[in-house]
Amino acid sequence: MADRTRGEDAIIADYFAPVAGEGGFGLRDDAAAFSPAEGCDVVVTADALVSGVHFFPDDPPAAIARKALAVNLSDLAAKGANPRGFVISLALEDDWREEWLAEFAGGLGYAARIYGCPLMGGDTVRAAGPFWVSITAFGEVPKGRMVHRFSALAGDIVCVSGTIGDAALGLKLRGGATAPWTMKVGLEQRVVLTDRFVHPQPRLALAPILRERVRAAMDVSDGLAGDLAKMCRLSGVGADVDLSLVPVSVAADAARRLHPPLFDVMMTGGDDYEILCATPPENLDALLADCETIGLRMTPIGHFRQGECTAIFRDDDVEKRYEKASFSHF
Amino acid sequence: MADRTRGEDAIIADYFAPVAGEGGFGLRDDAAAFSPAEGCDVVVTADALVSGVHFFPDDPPAAIARKALAVNLSDLAAKGANPRGFVISLALEDDWREEWLAEFAGGLGYAARIYGCPLMGGDTVRAAGPFWVSITAFGEVPKGRMVHRFSALAGDIVCVSGTIGDAALGLKLRGGATAPWTMKVGLEQRVVLTDRFVHPQPRLALAPILRERVRAAMDVSDGLAGDLAKMCRLSGVGADVDLSLVPVSVAADAARRLHPPLFDVMMTGGDDYEILCATPPENLDALLADCETIGLRMTPIGHFRQGECTAIFRDDDVEKRYEKASFSHF
Repeated sequence: MADRTRGEDAIIADYFAPVAGEGGFGLRDDAAAFSPAEGCDVVVTADALVSGVHFFPDDPPAAIARKALAVNLSDLAAKGANPRGFVISLALEDDWREEWLAEFAGGLGYAARIYGCPLMGGDTVRAAGPFWVSITAFGEVPKGRMVHRFSALAGDIVCVSGTIGDAALGLKLRGGATAPWTMKVGLEQRVVLTDRFVHPQPRLALAPILRERVRAAMDVSDGLAGDLAKMCRLSGVGADVDLSLVPVSVAADAARRLHPPLFDVMMTGGDDYEILCATPPENLDALLADCETIGLRMTPIGHFRQGECTAIFRDDDVEKRYEKASFSHF
Repeated sequence: MADRTRGEDAIIADYFAPVAGEGGFGLRDDAAAFSPAEGCDVVVTADALVSGVHFFPDDPPAAIARKALAVNLSDLAAKGANPRGFVISLALEDDWREEWLAEFAGGLGYAARIYGCPLMGGDTVRAAGPFWVSITAFGEVPKGRMVHRFSALAGDIVCVSGTIGDAALGLKLRGGATAPWTMKVGLEQRVVLTDRFVHPQPRLALAPILRERVRAAMDVSDGLAGDLAKMCRLSGVGADVDLSLVPVSVAADAARRLHPPLFDVMMTGGDDYEILCATPPENLDALLADCETIGLRMTPIGHFRQGECTAIFRDDDVEKRYEKASFSHF
């Protein structure tokens, strides 16, 4: 059990100070300081995760910490920003355990190192209700070059990185769904899909490529269909997507062969943390070539058009709009 | 009642986008961007408030929003930083009400305007448990000039701004304490003290003065005794304070005349949001003169010394250390 006589300062000193990085003054101050590189803007994003909503209470603490950072870095990547640092606020439950917090902090430090984004500060509170963690991450882009999500133009190509739908299936598997298909999925597939949900991977290597090649970008956190619809609405354009072009992994493909309706889950489920972007046609070849050099697949799946600001998904004779189906953490 | 079919995007568009400021792109993107002024560092601080811990669930929503921003700006002021912008994460309870959120957002916008610190972005989640709000605020200081809290030296003068202990008494009055003194406090005093708890005032005007005149500074959020002890511990010095010099308001003085033990509450209670600083003796006159020009009292109350890293408070024959007494939100 945790030593209840220890306060916030001791917790910070024991668990978080050892994983703090440059700019955080060893967490001995109540603020951090940094300067963006010469000629760069600071890009800021904030995302909170709540136990039981965004992750399972019994997920490994290190995985929760890593995911909390990863979802913020995914936003930075989509904006074309290189990570610079982050601050964290978290609320410990009344019955928090020392070992749990040690694992959480260790996972946070590991993630900060692998992503090159140092912990700079934060705040720890005790609160009734579920554990939550809120991270604000800072990145940098050359001045004025942040990539927006509301700037797609008719004629741009809809592109998406990696594969779509793995995490949505992983969530079902992780959550203990008992539908027949879940019993038939092979161990290999089960691990791959679950891991996409538990350990989302921010596409940091894409950031500089997006700055050069695309007109608009956002990360896919609430499902491809819903996020594309959002980009359409905010940009004042529509989009037509060829469902047969949407990239899916071998594991997800195996699952949907077992149970075809899963395809809709894959298109509308959340937590992909891939990058959705609007690419001017003249930049498409360069974008694909650049992505090849970093070993990440980028796939054109349709185009933006004038007219009704909705996203329409077509496959042979089927036309889907998924308007009510998108996942929302809210 | 809130329209449950509306998602996070509608809530942001309806309530928060209207109060967003420069750098926030009207909250239409999932990140904000800004540049610190030429030759400046970015200073970052994060503080979370939880309903029932840091404020009363039935406090006015506008006051809760303002306090959430104010406590962060208080940290920036103590670091010598001018506010630049902030992002907010908040968790709405299952039974959140439209009018409550409208008032909260209105109060947030008002506070952002009066403090000159625009809302740039954030995240809204739904969660079981009490309402909470986490703000990360950004300020700027000339490069390398952030004022630290761990840099006091033996020989420096202990100074504190404004008056100490009002909010601690205000918390008792606001919380419905029924001790005899609470019945005898006049209406005028009751209002003043309660308001210091509900509407803390960040000492933003002090920021540029602190940068020029003091060696170390922090805001007094967990009580003067505890925060001074923290500054001592982090700086590796001790401090001697003359209790008769600690500045108290007319209202607090009236209360402690009614019930003398309240003085210890005033010295150890939290939420003052005054500035505690370590001033080199040769800078003291200039510091006091500068503070006079902004209409804020700064009071020398003791000095830092070598030896045991504790804060000792003396008054005639009494010597107090308040070691276990300090308030902790944690």
